[in-house]
Amino acid sequence: MTTNIRAGIVGYGNLGRSVEALIAQQPDMDLHGIFSRRDSLDTQTPVFSVDDIAAHRDQVDVLFLCLGSATDMPAQAASFAKQFTTVDTYDNHNLIPEHRAKMDAAAREGDNLALISTGWDPGLFSLNRVLAASLFPQPQQATFWGLGVSQGHSDAIRRIEGVKRGVQYTVPSEDAVAAAKAGQPVDPKAAHKRQCVIVADAADHDRIRETIVTMPDYFVGYDTTVEFVSEAEFEANHTGMPHGGQVITAGQLVDSHNAVSFELELGRNPDFTGAVMVAYGRAAARLRAQGTVGAITPFEVAPYLLSPKSLDDLVASTL
Amino acid sequence: MTTNIRAGIVGYGNLGRSVEALIAQQPDMDLHGIFSRRDSLDTQTPVFSVDDIAAHRDQVDVLFLCLGSATDMPAQAASFAKQFTTVDTYDNHNLIPEHRAKMDAAAREGDNLALISTGWDPGLFSLNRVLAASLFPQPQQATFWGLGVSQGHSDAIRRIEGVKRGVQYTVPSEDAVAAAKAGQPVDPKAAHKRQCVIVADAADHDRIRETIVTMPDYFVGYDTTVEFVSEAEFEANHTGMPHGGQVITAGQLVDSHNAVSFELELGRNPDFTGAVMVAYGRAAARLRAQGTVGAITPFEVAPYLLSPKSLDDLVASTL
Repeated sequence: MTTNIRAGIVGYGNLGRSVEALIAQQPDMDLHGIFSRRDSLDTQTPVFSVDDIAAHRDQVDVLFLCLGSATDMPAQAASFAKQFTTVDTYDNHNLIPEHRAKMDAAAREGDNLALISTGWDPGLFSLNRVLAASLFPQPQQATFWGLGVSQGHSDAIRRIEGVKRGVQYTVPSEDAVAAAKAGQPVDPKAAHKRQCVIVADAADHDRIRETIVTMPDYFVGYDTTVEFVSEAEFEANHTGMPHGGQVITAGQLVDSHNAVSFELELGRNPDFTGAVMVAYGRAAARLRAQGTVGAITPFEVAPYLLSPKSLDDLVASTL
Repeated sequence: MTTNIRAGIVGYGNLGRSVEALIAQQPDMDLHGIFSRRDSLDTQTPVFSVDDIAAHRDQVDVLFLCLGSATDMPAQAASFAKQFTTVDTYDNHNLIPEHRAKMDAAAREGDNLALISTGWDPGLFSLNRVLAASLFPQPQQATFWGLGVSQGHSDAIRRIEGVKRGVQYTVPSEDAVAAAKAGQPVDPKAAHKRQCVIVADAADHDRIRETIVTMPDYFVGYDTTVEFVSEAEFEANHTGMPHGGQVITAGQLVDSHNAVSFELELGRNPDFTGAVMVAYGRAAARLRAQGTVGAITPFEVAPYLLSPKSLDDLVASTL
C-alpha cells in the first residue's frame, strides 16, 4: 500500500481554485491546505497564513505555486523552493533560463525539487515542440493560439469610449494552419485573425469599429472583425475563458513530407492549466521521492510519471 | 567534445532502408553497418553477415531492429538484446507485455538496454494517450487511423477476380472525430470510412463493387466507396504508403469541457516510423551510457533525450 501525495497550494486566484478542485478528484493526492495572505477564503479546505508556511514542511510533499507570473512569482518562488518541492507555471518565455537558475539554487539549498514552467505554453506545447522537432533533420515549426480570449486586446477595446462590454478572440487563420502543415514558413501577423465582440449603443458602432481597426500595434495589419451584440447575448456567450491553440511541425523525411500536430481546445484556461500542473505535481513528488533535487523542466519528466496508473498498467492498457 | 553514437541496423526492408537514410542526416550518429542474412545489398553502407554480429559488440552503441513484427521479431529480438542495446518497433499490442518481459530478461543478461515498441502506434500515439489521459479525472479517448493504406484490406480487394490493381484507404469519419472532441463515445465501425481505388475492365465494375461492399468482416457495416481509375492514374497517385491518424482525448475539468488532439499526416509510413525509431535510438544510447539497463518503453523516456540539442539549448529556445 502506497501513501497519498500530500499537496499544498499557495495563492488562491483562478488557478489556485482550479488546482484545489482538481486535487480533490485525484485518487492518489490529498490537499493539506491553502496558504494565503488573506485571513479567510471561501473554501472548505484548511487555510493557513503564508507567514506560517515553514511550520508545514513535514506535512506537504509538493507545493503548487499558484502565483501571478508578473510580480509574485519572481519575488517569492525561490523562497518557497528552499522549503518545499514545488511546481509552477512560470510563463515569461524569455526569462525562463533565469527563473530556472534561481529555482535550481534555492531547491538544492533546501534539498528539494522545483518543477518549473508546467501548464500548456510553456508546458505541453514545449514538450510537443521538442518531441516533433527531434524527428526531422530540418523541422519547420509554427505555434497558433486560439480560439482564445486575449486579455491585453480585450482591455484595449474596453478603454474605447462608448464600449460597455467587450472581448477580443484570437483565432488561427485556416490558410496559415494549412501552410504550416505543408511545411511552409508562416508570417505571425497573417497567422491569426482578431474577432472583437462588443456591447455599445448603436450610435457609437461606426466610431468604435473605426477606432479598433486603426489601432496601431494591437489591430493594424491583422484581419480584424468587429461584431456588436446585445448585453444579454454577451452575458450568455462571451464571459468564459476559452483558449487553445496548436503546435504544427512539418518536414521532409527521406523522400516524403510529414506533419505532426498537437492541438488543444480548452473550455476554461485556468482549469486546463491547473490539470497540467496537478499531473506534473504528481511527477515532482515521485521524482523527489526517488532522490531527484534541483530545478527541472517538463522536458526532463518521463511521461508515465504523470499518470496515477502504474507503469505495468500503462504498458498493458495503453502502449 | 562528445563522441557520436555508433549505430547498427539489422534487417534491410522498407524500415531498415529508411533508418539508414535518416541516420546519415543525424548530427550525432554514425552508421557502423547493416547486418543481413543476404550476401549483398544495394547500399554504400558496410554490410556484414548477421551470423558474425557478435564480433561487432564493441563497435555498436545501439542496434536498430528493423525486423518484421510477425515472425522475425519474436524469434530473434531477445538474442540481439543479449548482445546489444536495442531499439524496436514491436507493434502487436496484445503481446507487448510478453515481449517486454522477454526483452527485459535478455537485456539484463547482457547488461544492455532494450527500448521497445517505438514508432507511432505503439509509440508516439501511446505517449500522447498517457499524457492526455493523465490530465482528466474521467478521460474519453479515441484513436483514428488514416488517411492511410490498409494492407489487409488492399490484399482482400486484390484477391477478387478481375481486379488488376487495387488499394484500400482507411479514412476517419469527420462526424466521429467531432464526436470524440465533444467527449462522446465513438463506435469503431462508424469512426472510419473505407475508400477502394481499383483498376479493372469496365465490364467487371458492377460485380467487383458488389463483391466488395458485401464482403463480411472487411467491408460490411462500414461506409465503403469504390472508385475505378485508369492504370496511369493508379500508377501516378496510388502507389505510395501514406498513413496517419489521431488520438483525441476529451473530458470535463472542474466546470469546463476540454479536448487534446495529437495528429499525424505521414507521406510515407516507413520513413516516419524510422524517424521515431532513430530519435528513440539516441535516447537509448544516452540512457545506457547513464547506466540504465533492462527493457524500457517510450513512457519511461524523458522528452529531451530524443533531441540532438542539449537540454540548456532546449530550455532557452523551446520552453
